[in-house]
Amino acid sequence: MALAEFELIRQYFATPALTFSRPGVVLGPGDDCALLQVPDGHVLAMSIDTLNDGVHFPSDADAEALAQRSLRVNLSDLAAMAAEPLGFTLALSLPKVSESWLQGFSQGLAACASQYQCSLLGGDTTRGPLAITIQVHGTVPIGAALRRSGARPGDAIYVTGTLGDAALALPYLTHKPGHDVANLSADEWAFLQAAFYQPEPRTQAGMALRGLASAAIDISDGLASDLNHILQASAAESGALGAIIESSQLPVSDLAAKLLTDQGRLSVLLGGGDDYELCVTVPPQCEAQAQAAISALGLRFTRVGEVVSASGIMVREAGGAPRPLQLSGYRHFGDEGDE
Amino acid sequence: MALAEFELIRQYFATPALTFSRPGVVLGPGDDCALLQVPDGHVLAMSIDTLNDGVHFPSDADAEALAQRSLRVNLSDLAAMAAEPLGFTLALSLPKVSESWLQGFSQGLAACASQYQCSLLGGDTTRGPLAITIQVHGTVPIGAALRRSGARPGDAIYVTGTLGDAALALPYLTHKPGHDVANLSADEWAFLQAAFYQPEPRTQAGMALRGLASAAIDISDGLASDLNHILQASAAESGALGAIIESSQLPVSDLAAKLLTDQGRLSVLLGGGDDYELCVTVPPQCEAQAQAAISALGLRFTRVGEVVSASGIMVREAGGAPRPLQLSGYRHFGDEGDE
Repeated sequence: MALAEFELIRQYFATPALTFSRPGVVLGPGDDCALLQVPDGHVLAMSIDTLNDGVHFPSDADAEALAQRSLRVNLSDLAAMAAEPLGFTLALSLPKVSESWLQGFSQGLAACASQYQCSLLGGDTTRGPLAITIQVHGTVPIGAALRRSGARPGDAIYVTGTLGDAALALPYLTHKPGHDVANLSADEWAFLQAAFYQPEPRTQAGMALRGLASAAIDISDGLASDLNHILQASAAESGALGAIIESSQLPVSDLAAKLLTDQGRLSVLLGGGDDYELCVTVPPQCEAQAQAAISALGLRFTRVGEVVSASGIMVREAGGAPRPLQLSGYRHFGDEGDE
Repeated sequence: MALAEFELIRQYFATPALTFSRPGVVLGPGDDCALLQVPDGHVLAMSIDTLNDGVHFPSDADAEALAQRSLRVNLSDLAAMAAEPLGFTLALSLPKVSESWLQGFSQGLAACASQYQCSLLGGDTTRGPLAITIQVHGTVPIGAALRRSGARPGDAIYVTGTLGDAALALPYLTHKPGHDVANLSADEWAFLQAAFYQPEPRTQAGMALRGLASAAIDISDGLASDLNHILQASAAESGALGAIIESSQLPVSDLAAKLLTDQGRLSVLLGGGDDYELCVTVPPQCEAQAQAAISALGLRFTRVGEVVSASGIMVREAGGAPRPLQLSGYRHFGDEGDE
């Protein structure tokens, strides 16, 4: 890219809407490094994620929606640690410079940055296939971060919001046969697009669960897979851990209830991924307080099962006995995982 | 990528050689976020950079060398802020999973991480065109970071090490006509490869210049371009700033002295880039102390010019009058810039 192009790109990101002041940001973009001062008694939480064209989003994705999704999925990682957003860095690879694309992308970023009070700290713009890497940074009091490793047998398993909406959106977004947008109402289509491109990082919920949840993760790969991360991380301290999921309790939106078929239901709700809801485990003595804390935020908070002293995830249909979970080859967009 | 592939990748990065303990690292890879505790009285410096296949490195680059370069160019940004390395995150996009490539890449990273005491804090591995994004994190006492904005008229301009070696390596690495490796001795070829793939981040030099240099930057785009960043950042507080560069003082290696032609000399030394040496400005009263501090590290530290109260960069050939610098279309690999 020529210097003039970089100057142009810089103009779209060096805006007050993106590089606003936050306590703790000593130096923002424009030098060799950004400088952060972490408040006394706090640690800095950070997480990095890449979204690649055609792997994590359709190639015809709208720039503004894409920016929103890119920052939101990263903020979701902070939420899962109960951290308060502070700022983010952006490494953006662009095959070419399009002003309309940059404008949309910048606007999407700014809207999300402002909503979650997470300002742009610095970045790198390079030529290459379209790829968006964002690292988010947040603060959390020492000892208050929610890790994956604290679940114990008997803990209840809760999820925020509803499951499966983004997974149901995907075949429409990628123009799969049998998934014609014309069969949806305008509201339904808007709802599904938002589910995929504008997942709500559960920032306030994560912070409200400090001291109440024993473990937390955000649901990016599907509840079954992500719950399994909690069970495995916690097993090191508790011995083998498993879970019983109450199928009838899995929270779904009205539209999901309409679109889901009996046959594919569990694959979507437990294996679909891209929900970016929190899955947390809560010790019995903290359940009432945790429920009250999340209700106060106006957010659904549903008990979907329980941690048990046995390996693997079992699912109980209403009135039946728990059976080992078997998800039949559902693959979400890109089929990726974090380290 | 299938789950088994991610598990494989994880094995190459979740090694003690990469995820070693560092004071301040509260939680490393494996959870939703890494957690850092910044020592009292310090700020956290951070910088993110992407290297794309075919843009920042040749597609046939050796994995180990590529890993070294990826981490080193990022550590160079910490050096330019006088920060001490602490840890890094890695977002890696891979088109396919090759065990031999992963092994080489992991070894290269580990060697560099160990040398600079910068451990792996977390990351994300995704499917996509080969791309390496690294964010480095370091600590620096409050107020001690070297910024670009502190240069004043009368300050001397110094560079560490030698200039132009990586720029001279590039046509050999990219198999350009007239640059046949067979015309180099084995030592010379090894020297050029190391100049490009294993630049030395001037970590100790940056830290030694705390309180002595008025401004600093690392030379990634070429001395002229990067010095210009200092002059522009400093002009906000000093009014228009320029520089006079003494052509005869530009430090070169023995091999560069042999390979450079009179005609292309300034383009390579001032416009070549990829040097990852430090360019710093030093107030006259600090020059002796700065020289002594860098000499004590066994590193060349050369006075190449002076900051003046005038716009633009002038170059003085030995015995002549300063003339405005004109670089004739030299473009380094990828032709990129940081935000």
